[in-house]
Amino acid sequence: MALIVQKFGGTSVGSPERIRNVANKVLAEMAKGNQVVVVVSAMSGETDRLIKLAREMHARPPERELDMLISTGEQVTIALLAMGLESLGQPARSYTGGQVAIQTDSVHTKARIVSIDEHRIREDLAAGRVVVVAGFQGVDAAGNITTLGRGGSDTTAVAIAAALKADECHIYTDVDGVYTTDPRIEPRARRLDRITFEEMLEMASLGAKVLQTRSVEFAGKYNVPVRVLSSFAEGPGTLVTCEEAAMEEAKVSGIAFNRNEAKITIVGVPDRPGIAHSILGAVSAASINVDMIIQNVSEHGKTDFTFTVERNDFDKALEIVQKIGRELDAEAVQGDNRIVKISIVGVGMRSHAGIAATMFETLARENINIQMISTSEIKISVVVDEKYLELAVRALHEAFGLDKAA
Amino acid sequence: MALIVQKFGGTSVGSPERIRNVANKVLAEMAKGNQVVVVVSAMSGETDRLIKLAREMHARPPERELDMLISTGEQVTIALLAMGLESLGQPARSYTGGQVAIQTDSVHTKARIVSIDEHRIREDLAAGRVVVVAGFQGVDAAGNITTLGRGGSDTTAVAIAAALKADECHIYTDVDGVYTTDPRIEPRARRLDRITFEEMLEMASLGAKVLQTRSVEFAGKYNVPVRVLSSFAEGPGTLVTCEEAAMEEAKVSGIAFNRNEAKITIVGVPDRPGIAHSILGAVSAASINVDMIIQNVSEHGKTDFTFTVERNDFDKALEIVQKIGRELDAEAVQGDNRIVKISIVGVGMRSHAGIAATMFETLARENINIQMISTSEIKISVVVDEKYLELAVRALHEAFGLDKAA
Repeated sequence: MALIVQKFGGTSVGSPERIRNVANKVLAEMAKGNQVVVVVSAMSGETDRLIKLAREMHARPPERELDMLISTGEQVTIALLAMGLESLGQPARSYTGGQVAIQTDSVHTKARIVSIDEHRIREDLAAGRVVVVAGFQGVDAAGNITTLGRGGSDTTAVAIAAALKADECHIYTDVDGVYTTDPRIEPRARRLDRITFEEMLEMASLGAKVLQTRSVEFAGKYNVPVRVLSSFAEGPGTLVTCEEAAMEEAKVSGIAFNRNEAKITIVGVPDRPGIAHSILGAVSAASINVDMIIQNVSEHGKTDFTFTVERNDFDKALEIVQKIGRELDAEAVQGDNRIVKISIVGVGMRSHAGIAATMFETLARENINIQMISTSEIKISVVVDEKYLELAVRALHEAFGLDKAA
Repeated sequence: MALIVQKFGGTSVGSPERIRNVANKVLAEMAKGNQVVVVVSAMSGETDRLIKLAREMHARPPERELDMLISTGEQVTIALLAMGLESLGQPARSYTGGQVAIQTDSVHTKARIVSIDEHRIREDLAAGRVVVVAGFQGVDAAGNITTLGRGGSDTTAVAIAAALKADECHIYTDVDGVYTTDPRIEPRARRLDRITFEEMLEMASLGAKVLQTRSVEFAGKYNVPVRVLSSFAEGPGTLVTCEEAAMEEAKVSGIAFNRNEAKITIVGVPDRPGIAHSILGAVSAASINVDMIIQNVSEHGKTDFTFTVERNDFDKALEIVQKIGRELDAEAVQGDNRIVKISIVGVGMRSHAGIAATMFETLARENINIQMISTSEIKISVVVDEKYLELAVRALHEAFGLDKAA
């Protein structure tokens, strides 16, 4: 008998009909002889409805009261799901975050989980009940209701799985697993049976949005095996697990890409200490997030400095850097918002030589010019003209044999 | 500086606009130099919306889960009201029933309050904050969310006022106080400045629905002065208080009536022990509530037995009694569903003789035949043909001088 934590998001519980579908998925897991804890989000649309009400009361609603308000969304879903389970003859009990003592810090609207008391959950499981827990919410040390921010329900599910030492945490989404790349770009893209936490983090942060980054970090930290499954289709999904357990031998696990990038280059600035800070300090002061940063070796005491930002921050960032360019007496400031970032991701890179060479050779053979390169231990990213996106993804997918089962 | 508990029902908080109106009423009370705790219900329509969702999940939703679900209604209102107060520059904090430790028994959907921990409320009040508490809800000893049933928010307000030893508990309604009788029947009906808990109970249970009976009982038990006020108009309202404080000298405080009655008489049954039980036992076994019961002295070993029921139970009750009449060999069973009950209520009756005589004389002068009479310490009720309702109410209102200020 295994202990499984299941998590269903807002779309999966968007109507009484869909909640009944979730109840059936819970029963299917019980039928395997497993114990089940279910974590659910608010019904889709409900959080937006509540935030709209809040804005009618206050231009900038106090965050403590906002948490009090929006936490009702999940509370509605847990009660309805427990009713749905009971109507199918399955004893069930719903709990708010506070009732199972999901203790967080006091940072309202983006609190972090400190601890969970699994005592009450274990009692119900032992009595043969399904335990339904509200995602996204907790209470601080003073008993105030807090919420966890974006992707909070995934984090709740992983945290409960960690506290209970559950065998697996199943995250139900609208896709049936993690793919080697986006099937809309490369129809031969293949669902991965397994992927490591680190690979998943790189895939997620690079624009392949399946799991929230924060929940994957949490799962990796507490070594909770996470399975990505579809709410609407059958199948084994993709298991996200620690490196030791991921036995796939592929050097590269997937190709991620991000269309939402723009680059800015400041050419010929004096190469002296503090130069990066004078450029990026001003950009981040304007609340603009910087992604890749590249500075090459200097020639004749001058250097070129390039970084990427989100596309909708491009105009604002360019304006800031043009001003700095004049102050620093730079030779030129150039911008390009028609670029994409493409990355190959895989823990296999650590122990396999020649991965980068294969990547660059593949792109060269297709006459794709590489504008920037950046590497980490388990990924290599390149920036290319956006018109090459599909061509580059397909060529790399084939070059690393991702269409063939490992 | 006084401590005031204010309570606003669903209609008063039915929209963001109306919640802002409530916030202004709170500020007006603060402006008098008072401390304020506010108790609110769910926005009108919200509880019905939630119950409809529940019924889509389960034909008979488990009551624990129903409480989990519908308690979100008040939680939404408290957050919105706290936001509204903050937007007017008034620091405020909202609390669920559980957060201020409104402990109840475990009877879901109609729990009774056991205790309240006023510690946290006092801290906020001392810090200059308005405390906004969710009505209608609490938690049982195991931390499960409970609800208090019909009129629960009134009860929450009175219970908090009792726990805090508040100076007054203000119940805002859609009327501006308690009247000597229904102004739609007698335009000269006068708003009472004061009324005792006992009189209020008799008025409420006799169909003059302003406060829920249960909250008045609670207020009387803990001697909490309750003021009935209008959400939508200014004015001092009516203070419901203990007898000693109610100094109005009127013998009769008000005329209550109930149109929703029907009577059944079983004529000529053997007058022997257990006869009442054999008739009423069968009626109550059919879940029919009996109101007045009258049995007169017997002649020749036979007696007549009359009782009243709600009008929509009349057909069912009559059928049951006809069957019993045959079994008991009664002479006849008669029914009449075109009757009304009219009552005069007043603690003054205790010390004033001749009240009943005045009542009967007044009705006789108008040629109104009295079908049944029933008395208690502070009220006299008569049953008459429904066509005499308006005439009887107006005649009695004048006879007892209720149109003149005390």
